Amino acid sequence: MSRYDTQDIIYALATPWGVSGLAVIRISGAGCRQALAPFFSRPEALLEAPNATMVHGYLHDEGQQRIDEVVLAINTEGHGYTAEEAIEVTSHGSVAVIQAILALLGRIGMRSAEGGEFTFRAFIHGRMDLTQAEAVEELVSSVSQRSRSLSLSRLEGRLRARLDELKDRLLTLLAAVEVQLDYSEDEVDEFVFPAASLSSLIASIQTLVDSYQVGRLYKQGARVVLAGQTNVGKSSLFNLLLKEERSIVSPYRGTTRDYIEADLEVGGIPIRLYDTAGLRESDDLVEREGIVRTERLIGEADLVIHLVDSTDLQDIPAEDERTIVVYNKSDLAPVGADKLAISAQSGEGVSRLLSAVEERLKRSLPAGGDEELVIEGERQWRLLEGAKNALLRAEELARDDGVLDVVAVELTEALGYLGELTGEVRSDDVLERIFSGFCVGK
Amino acid sequence: MSRYDTQDIIYALATPWGVSGLAVIRISGAGCRQALAPFFSRPEALLEAPNATMVHGYLHDEGQQRIDEVVLAINTEGHGYTAEEAIEVTSHGSVAVIQAILALLGRIGMRSAEGGEFTFRAFIHGRMDLTQAEAVEELVSSVSQRSRSLSLSRLEGRLRARLDELKDRLLTLLAAVEVQLDYSEDEVDEFVFPAASLSSLIASIQTLVDSYQVGRLYKQGARVVLAGQTNVGKSSLFNLLLKEERSIVSPYRGTTRDYIEADLEVGGIPIRLYDTAGLRESDDLVEREGIVRTERLIGEADLVIHLVDSTDLQDIPAEDERTIVVYNKSDLAPVGADKLAISAQSGEGVSRLLSAVEERLKRSLPAGGDEELVIEGERQWRLLEGAKNALLRAEELARDDGVLDVVAVELTEALGYLGELTGEVRSDDVLERIFSGFCVGK
Repeated sequence: MSRYDTQDIIYALATPWGVSGLAVIRISGAGCRQALAPFFSRPEALLEAPNATMVHGYLHDEGQQRIDEVVLAINTEGHGYTAEEAIEVTSHGSVAVIQAILALLGRIGMRSAEGGEFTFRAFIHGRMDLTQAEAVEELVSSVSQRSRSLSLSRLEGRLRARLDELKDRLLTLLAAVEVQLDYSEDEVDEFVFPAASLSSLIASIQTLVDSYQVGRLYKQGARVVLAGQTNVGKSSLFNLLLKEERSIVSPYRGTTRDYIEADLEVGGIPIRLYDTAGLRESDDLVEREGIVRTERLIGEADLVIHLVDSTDLQDIPAEDERTIVVYNKSDLAPVGADKLAISAQSGEGVSRLLSAVEERLKRSLPAGGDEELVIEGERQWRLLEGAKNALLRAEELARDDGVLDVVAVELTEALGYLGELTGEVRSDDVLERIFSGFCVGK
Repeated sequence: MSRYDTQDIIYALATPWGVSGLAVIRISGAGCRQALAPFFSRPEALLEAPNATMVHGYLHDEGQQRIDEVVLAINTEGHGYTAEEAIEVTSHGSVAVIQAILALLGRIGMRSAEGGEFTFRAFIHGRMDLTQAEAVEELVSSVSQRSRSLSLSRLEGRLRARLDELKDRLLTLLAAVEVQLDYSEDEVDEFVFPAASLSSLIASIQTLVDSYQVGRLYKQGARVVLAGQTNVGKSSLFNLLLKEERSIVSPYRGTTRDYIEADLEVGGIPIRLYDTAGLRESDDLVEREGIVRTERLIGEADLVIHLVDSTDLQDIPAEDERTIVVYNKSDLAPVGADKLAISAQSGEGVSRLLSAVEERLKRSLPAGGDEELVIEGERQWRLLEGAKNALLRAEELARDDGVLDVVAVELTEALGYLGELTGEVRSDDVLERIFSGFCVGK
């Protein structure tokens, strides 16, 4: 991989750009201590620091002008995130300090890291497989606790371990077939194709394939739209939901002034909630445009909370897979126990509503399975699908007493897909595509 | 100070909030390792880690659910930034991870830190005086390299050392006066007031007082407006300046569409540069409003670069303290050597223009003095002014053979001002006001 030359000493700001207490700049590559030492107030301490220790001092430029007081955290070769000799520079979180340090590192021959390049080095040095490397990026970008926990579980290597186990089972199968191919029929007992092993392997892979939907829901979340006539209490409910939920990230006005959106989390699922213009006939052009947009939002929603007024029961919409009908103002006019009644005024019934939302969104998920073991991303899904389909072809061939050579080819193809998933089988192009999507400093 | 109870274990996110490679959460206070150990995968390693070492492992919650893979950087009591037992948690830079860790720390009895509270503890434990504590905040918020270098110099204690020296000289003076007051005239030789020492002390303080303008210029910067008729090449010059300068922070369109502003740095001075609507008679209402705003900008500017067209020399404005007249299109029509000529097309003369801008902005600064020793902030200026004025009164009294008791009172008052400056003389209210203006995590 040309862009990811592993001989260079690389550096990047690993914390967000901005004013704060601290900033961390990562440096990795053989010889990085020797390269930085002439610009550090305590070169001997830096060069002699054991692994996993910190050295306090000042960075200065070529003209001995001090840049900042810093703490250098040292990892020696074979240790730390990249398993390379590495330094983490913790400086004051000032834009001018960060600029000055990055400029110095560039001038003394280090190279600004590409996206994901630290993780790439961890991968190259065998610290993690490709599913773990991808988990790093997913973990960093996770906003919900559930998505954090799922990607951490992948980072810890649980998916890698499962894939290793699947590969073992597949190799055992393949070995049995190849033994048969290597010897004539006279030499070994009659061959019985291990059909049960193959079908159980297919089922295991199918479970992982199915988990893609789970990962997607927790990672990408769902779009939930509050709809209903004007004046049924949509905005009161909207505000109530945002106040009730602690995990609001950013409530803000839509740029188009016609609807408001905000983020919250329900049962671990990140939700973008839309408060819409009330649906009614109107002569006002702006309002009519608002209603057109509301209808578009409803069309694109994963779930619609359709609010009706208990004191004025007209035009009750039909409940369906994507629509929950909720009766507001239950404090003024009680409705039947079979209905979802709330009072956006008093807050009554709101937690029941949230449970209903969570239940609806999770309804589409596959049942059972190891809930913590979830794949993520189109790449993982596509490769598992590839492996599964090759195994299904092998199964069909074996059932029809097909040529054993061809069965072996299909099994080998499936193994290739699994190897690509973990990164054992790889091409530079694929690696570059994967890692270049990562954020810089990771 | 009630809000700054030093018995608590405090914590705060020390890096900016956002998605990035790493995030750092600071924890400080006696017993913080013991408090965190039950939630760390390697409690023994955490508890036994020597000062300035790092421990790798996992943080988990009360239900043993893993939160993230982290590196804990340990400082034992008497070491590190606060000189307290402290932990810096480096986690993945994910919003969900940060939220989960901060929530855990809150639940296990630690307290979310107030603004500047880590620095406050460093001050309380004698790691820095008040001018150094203020320098931390100034350093963090510095955007220009000059401002960074000035605040770093204060953080290193150079201002503190100078103030200590001034206090020594003042104490010597005061001691001489008090010896005289303690004994009757018979017992000692005739008293000669050390007028030369006092006046040299006043001069030294005056130099520091004057340096306030230097600090202000490098910290707050200057507003520079590009003005001139339409079509004289203002926008070409604007773009050229932004391209030439490496330290652009954020060029962006003004919200009012009538002028554009961008940040650059000239000779270490942060400059906000404004490209304005051309000055001309117009019937267009929007354009006329633009011209009104241009005139307001010119009125508020620290410096106006008035661009004229060398090929069409009309309405040449007068050069004054706040105005530099620049002749553009010098490639098409040469102007006299006494004029500042540029070509915004070829870039010729632009570096001469930048030098002229720098020279103009620095013209108002006091000459000489130790350039690196600069006070910053209204508080420091006000206390030094107070000290100086008390000393001036003492000087006048001594000259007029005033009562020596009163001279001593003035000298003591001056000493009080200097003590307040470094934080030896302090009130909780003042401290709280100073530190609460700092950013959290510092």
